[in-house]
Amino acid sequence: MSDTAADHSATDPGAPAGGRELSGTALMDKVVNLCKRRGFVFPSAEIYGGFRSAYDYGPEGVLMLRNVKDAWWRSMVQMRTDVVGLDASILSPPAIWEASGHLQNFTDPLVDCTKCGHRFREDHLEDLGTCPNCGAKDSFTGARAFNLMFKTHAGPVEESAAVAYLRPETAQGMFVNFANVLNASRKKPPFGIAQVGKSFRNEITPGNFVFRTREFEQMELEFFVPPDQGAQWYEYWCRERVQWYRELGIPEASLRLRAHDAEELSHYSTGTSDVEFLFPWGWGELEGIANRTDYDLTQHSRHSGVDLSYFDQESGSRYVPHVIEPAAGATRSMMAFLIAAYDEEEVRGETRVVLRLHPRIAPYKVAVLPLSKKETLTVTSREVLGLVQGRWMSDHDETQSIGRRYRRQDELGTPYCVTVDFDSLEDRAVTVRDRDSMAQDRVPIAELVGFLAERLP
Amino acid sequence: MSDTAADHSATDPGAPAGGRELSGTALMDKVVNLCKRRGFVFPSAEIYGGFRSAYDYGPEGVLMLRNVKDAWWRSMVQMRTDVVGLDASILSPPAIWEASGHLQNFTDPLVDCTKCGHRFREDHLEDLGTCPNCGAKDSFTGARAFNLMFKTHAGPVEESAAVAYLRPETAQGMFVNFANVLNASRKKPPFGIAQVGKSFRNEITPGNFVFRTREFEQMELEFFVPPDQGAQWYEYWCRERVQWYRELGIPEASLRLRAHDAEELSHYSTGTSDVEFLFPWGWGELEGIANRTDYDLTQHSRHSGVDLSYFDQESGSRYVPHVIEPAAGATRSMMAFLIAAYDEEEVRGETRVVLRLHPRIAPYKVAVLPLSKKETLTVTSREVLGLVQGRWMSDHDETQSIGRRYRRQDELGTPYCVTVDFDSLEDRAVTVRDRDSMAQDRVPIAELVGFLAERLP
Repeated sequence: MSDTAADHSATDPGAPAGGRELSGTALMDKVVNLCKRRGFVFPSAEIYGGFRSAYDYGPEGVLMLRNVKDAWWRSMVQMRTDVVGLDASILSPPAIWEASGHLQNFTDPLVDCTKCGHRFREDHLEDLGTCPNCGAKDSFTGARAFNLMFKTHAGPVEESAAVAYLRPETAQGMFVNFANVLNASRKKPPFGIAQVGKSFRNEITPGNFVFRTREFEQMELEFFVPPDQGAQWYEYWCRERVQWYRELGIPEASLRLRAHDAEELSHYSTGTSDVEFLFPWGWGELEGIANRTDYDLTQHSRHSGVDLSYFDQESGSRYVPHVIEPAAGATRSMMAFLIAAYDEEEVRGETRVVLRLHPRIAPYKVAVLPLSKKETLTVTSREVLGLVQGRWMSDHDETQSIGRRYRRQDELGTPYCVTVDFDSLEDRAVTVRDRDSMAQDRVPIAELVGFLAERLP
Repeated sequence: MSDTAADHSATDPGAPAGGRELSGTALMDKVVNLCKRRGFVFPSAEIYGGFRSAYDYGPEGVLMLRNVKDAWWRSMVQMRTDVVGLDASILSPPAIWEASGHLQNFTDPLVDCTKCGHRFREDHLEDLGTCPNCGAKDSFTGARAFNLMFKTHAGPVEESAAVAYLRPETAQGMFVNFANVLNASRKKPPFGIAQVGKSFRNEITPGNFVFRTREFEQMELEFFVPPDQGAQWYEYWCRERVQWYRELGIPEASLRLRAHDAEELSHYSTGTSDVEFLFPWGWGELEGIANRTDYDLTQHSRHSGVDLSYFDQESGSRYVPHVIEPAAGATRSMMAFLIAAYDEEEVRGETRVVLRLHPRIAPYKVAVLPLSKKETLTVTSREVLGLVQGRWMSDHDETQSIGRRYRRQDELGTPYCVTVDFDSLEDRAVTVRDRDSMAQDRVPIAELVGFLAERLP
């Protein structure tokens, strides 16, 4: 076969020779390394030495994070008639956090070492006798409550009236807008308000890559129901949410729903379950689903003086809706999808790294690859790109050998590579390579969109 | 005709009787009122008396804002091969803002009244002799520079090493990640990095609804070019960006490109133009397009000690890329689209309010309306909804008279209403009503998706 051949398997890794078992630190290191190398995640402000465990999402990361959020939005808002969206302000007044309880209770117990001045979470110190930083003995102050909300001032004067907090969760935006949404949307319970957006928590010990960061992105639903339907909707949302992760590719063995026991439960909650993923360091929370009863609306009614009860015209009764809250982390979900998708296999004596991402969340759905940079191929590959890029996020890569470009797309999780070769100029067909099987199909350009549409969501 | 008739024009406002001329305060009031009534924009924390000119985007507003941002992303990232995306952290260290010049220069001159303590922007006071608040004479302090960045602390100790700023623009995220993106994406100049996200400026005088708010959303592109191509790419992006607003429905008479004169130009810029929209109170900036030369990368190279020059292998030359920056406001663009789309017309003695939004940015593309709530129609209308909602954001509304529901969808800017009536059960067809012409077509359910696909992007 010549190098213009329609079948590029000679330069392709070939059939899989069996995946490797990867786990623990080794897997974590590989995923973090791939994230940096392939443009998923960069340490924030890296040229200035980084900034306190903050991260930026690079070209591929921003596409994948958008896809995760869009998949959630599609499932929770677009495909339902009983949920509407919201996008509330991050800056918010103390009154909201007083009503919600965050000002009083959203705290960690901190102790200071009087010798070196270092500050620690008391509950993270195994031994209070000796400072882990300077070794001083019995040097700790008593524990003080440290509020985890970021505080700033809005307006020209740094006075108490100007205090604003960066929201530590998106949820309160839905509660304080409950009446506004009810009036404008004309929905009635059971119905929900959904929001995707950034939240901020001044964590004392961020860590595990993007799992725990001070700035993170949430996907939250507050679902308002008649009080006697709380239990059934709680069960419903537990099932739905586990299913969402399963459908997007988290294997059953790495996913579990864990009900909080009595000690873990908030005083107002009658039931909370965490959707947990088996991270390389152990089980970690992706999402919490809580039956919050009427706590939130009642608190805001009391503190604001605005009646947030609902009058049901059909039954003639008035009640404060109960709230079922599935609250997911977008950034840590993305991390779970990356870890679950990471795979290595031996192919012809070389290691192929491939992200077996669900097509819906893969950064690119299609990569168009002209076999060479020659002008004749560029024209056709641009034509092919023009057919697909309006419909699917597509990459176009014309440098390096075709084998190396396949490997690059494997590492990005691109489900289909479309190769334009010199035969394409004659037969008006292209080679479509499947990421997972590495199988190649010769497809007429005129049928390409249909071919891909059958295989992509 | 019976009330089950396929033609619903008897309950429809009928043919337009000529639009009204609306302008100034009257137009502004109507748009603001519609935004609240129909769930586009709510005052933030309204049940607590609002919060310092902050706003929340309601069910329809969040859809429209997403559409505006997605239209930008599609045009700037998805449909191009020379631009990649980024999503950088909002919390950022002082080092970035020292290098960018924001710590020193991003200030307003403020004066205090020594009698009442009120603080004013010096350049907004017409007469420095008398306090506009308390009337005291000659009571002002000298002007002091007030930095417009929001300041907070990351970590458990409020010390200088923990100072963080909320970014006042997304642009710096692209500059500090320039080398990371270059390595990971293998792009080379001319190429761009695009970002959509929230920025924060502690404005002394926010106002004009969502035009100037302390928290707002930006859509910024930093386009890196060889130094000798700066002028031509600046011209290119000026043309492109004006065209984007035109294509999404801003009429020519309400849009202009205004070049800054020498006095307005930043010291490093060789050219800046604003895309301006004719708001009810006059021309206001939607977007600035600036030729920032090599200022940003040079500053960050100096301050970080990291070389941010680019070595061009083809020409064998090394240079610091020049930057062309089209920086748009997402929230104020949404406001401009709303104002431009707002229309009223007299129809059969009644006023029809209609948002003539481009379909791409309308909150819903389709509304499915069963003529009555009867079970027989619900089944078919759910079937119809199932055909369209996977592809287009769709509303489903089954309460009130069909005429009132049409009016509601007109006010939301929904391009097509699909009405399921009792005839639909027999003829397997639905009535599709066009928002602008109010014309009605009877379309077989089997052909509905095709019919809409021809008319919607």
